Amino acid sequence: MLPQPVAPRLPAGIDSPALVIDVGIVQRNARRIADAVSERGVALRPHVKTHKSVAIAQMQLEAGATGITVGTLGEAEVMAEGGIADIFVAYPVWADAAKARRLRALHERPQLALSVGLDSVAGVQSLAAAVAGSARPLAVLIELDSGQHRTGVDPARVVEIARAAQTAGLAVRGLFTHGGHAYGGLDAAAGAAHDEVSALAAGREALHASGIDVELLSAGSSPTALRAASAPVTEVRPGTYVVGDRQQVALGASPADGVAIAVAATVVSDGFDRVVINAGAKTLTKDVPPYLAGYGCLPRYPDGVIERVSDYHGVIVFPAGSARPRLGELVAVVPNHACPVIDLFDTFLATRDGELLGVWPVDARGRSG
Amino acid sequence: MLPQPVAPRLPAGIDSPALVIDVGIVQRNARRIADAVSERGVALRPHVKTHKSVAIAQMQLEAGATGITVGTLGEAEVMAEGGIADIFVAYPVWADAAKARRLRALHERPQLALSVGLDSVAGVQSLAAAVAGSARPLAVLIELDSGQHRTGVDPARVVEIARAAQTAGLAVRGLFTHGGHAYGGLDAAAGAAHDEVSALAAGREALHASGIDVELLSAGSSPTALRAASAPVTEVRPGTYVVGDRQQVALGASPADGVAIAVAATVVSDGFDRVVINAGAKTLTKDVPPYLAGYGCLPRYPDGVIERVSDYHGVIVFPAGSARPRLGELVAVVPNHACPVIDLFDTFLATRDGELLGVWPVDARGRSG
Repeated sequence: MLPQPVAPRLPAGIDSPALVIDVGIVQRNARRIADAVSERGVALRPHVKTHKSVAIAQMQLEAGATGITVGTLGEAEVMAEGGIADIFVAYPVWADAAKARRLRALHERPQLALSVGLDSVAGVQSLAAAVAGSARPLAVLIELDSGQHRTGVDPARVVEIARAAQTAGLAVRGLFTHGGHAYGGLDAAAGAAHDEVSALAAGREALHASGIDVELLSAGSSPTALRAASAPVTEVRPGTYVVGDRQQVALGASPADGVAIAVAATVVSDGFDRVVINAGAKTLTKDVPPYLAGYGCLPRYPDGVIERVSDYHGVIVFPAGSARPRLGELVAVVPNHACPVIDLFDTFLATRDGELLGVWPVDARGRSG
Repeated sequence: MLPQPVAPRLPAGIDSPALVIDVGIVQRNARRIADAVSERGVALRPHVKTHKSVAIAQMQLEAGATGITVGTLGEAEVMAEGGIADIFVAYPVWADAAKARRLRALHERPQLALSVGLDSVAGVQSLAAAVAGSARPLAVLIELDSGQHRTGVDPARVVEIARAAQTAGLAVRGLFTHGGHAYGGLDAAAGAAHDEVSALAAGREALHASGIDVELLSAGSSPTALRAASAPVTEVRPGTYVVGDRQQVALGASPADGVAIAVAATVVSDGFDRVVINAGAKTLTKDVPPYLAGYGCLPRYPDGVIERVSDYHGVIVFPAGSARPRLGELVAVVPNHACPVIDLFDTFLATRDGELLGVWPVDARGRSG
């Protein structure tokens, strides 16, 4: 049996469905990973695409993070507007006309240290054109494919791209990779962390042999972050660790009581073998890793499986005789994957041990480009 | 080979990812179904959870719809604020304290004909308490399970619920059902439509035998709407038909050129067998019906399969030698399922034949409760 999450306590009397985030647990998670990474002599640059909240990003910085990671210019714009001073866009940004204007505005923003990713010579040209004539060079990191086979290049190709970037006037600060194949199965994290370190070391070696030395080697996902946090890696970029979710607990990347997030839902209907809650695909998403059953879990009713979701319905099936919630009951669902769930909510209920502190914005909600 | 959708034309020079909706195709779809339903002597009450746009709802009313359907009080609030006068909440609304206040405000709103669903005696009590002392009775429809086994009751149980509703002072206007098992497979629609009609007829018969006559028998989904649109059914509630999507085309419920919606995405990276676009799970969702391959399709590049999505990446794999888009190219992706995709965007680009008319709000985005 996989490890099961504990749900944060829900405040009483709330409307549903609602996104609940216990900021006490958030702060504990932020400190735990910041301390563990710091002990290993590595910097922490958490990916904020998970929570999209300026307030939570600030908690991560207060706990010791040196800057943040984002996935889109939209997230960078929101976080910069929120006062965050050091932002890395860990994505091969393609600067067509609309993106070039936005990238340049970010690059020239006072008090912001911006760096962006790229993974092609053509990408170099698009970025260089976007910042042409700017007073300072744009800082870039080249993305390496460490085995996920998504974006990024083989370490053998990194010299060609780095030279093109230098020729075009970009400042090549380092290399980054994301061992996303850590999510491929329950035992994949150790191998993926090893692949991240190997790819970064090989890329650095190839650059060094060509006379190019870089200062940053950036790795990581929540499952790989601690495993990859040692020399030559200089920083790690986990995201989900700060709120946790069902998947992180199953993968062993979060303690069972490290889950800060729940969707509060109400039982609206029941039938002979099932109850139906008012949280469906537009609340829980259809994100189901192959090693989990159902679209989230109910820690208080562990025998229930959320077998089907439609837009506003979650159908939870129970074995005969097992405990189930009653009609009208408010239940806590721990989502499989926090990132796309949080991105469906404009606001969340910030709580501490079940006490409602306030309604906080998901500042960068929907900023997917 | 399943029927493949045609994508609406994209305007040039837009930022990505973007949601594009061709309102010329929307108006054509709105008229086609309104006319076909009207010829059968049945009323059309489209479900607006698909598009969440007041402007598109108004187009549906102009084309002949008699009112609209929503799935949540939040959608009802937005549509009422937008001036729509006849709204049915096709959902077993559970009126806890927060929902009771909102339901009562809607019920007492001038110039709004509101009706809501229910499927239990306990639900009757919660609704009755919410509107206690109100000057007019709340109109309700009882939900029947016609085979989807989600919400709704067996026709044999409808009399008990109708009597409880009458005793509690609610106005029992009719019965409704949703043959959502129409989405269970490529040949499921005809059977599901038959099940809808049978359940409604049986429910009406049971009520009539108990001395209760109702005026409304409401059925339908986009795949079943035309098949279920005949006596004794009095109205149908399709939703997705007005924008179409890849799934509707595959099911034969939308013509190939009836797809009004596309996600515009940019190729940001390429590898030996793949290209990566800047539209991932936070744009296309992870909604994949079992009879479709990949997280959407690219009508212009029919050999590409969107094999994997992460938050901001869509990995499209191509067989050797097949046509593929170049780095930086803007491509049109037709999503598998329009409803959850539209719900990720605050706005859409309203177009006609590729010409940009304006940026329109997705008014009820995120109003999932």
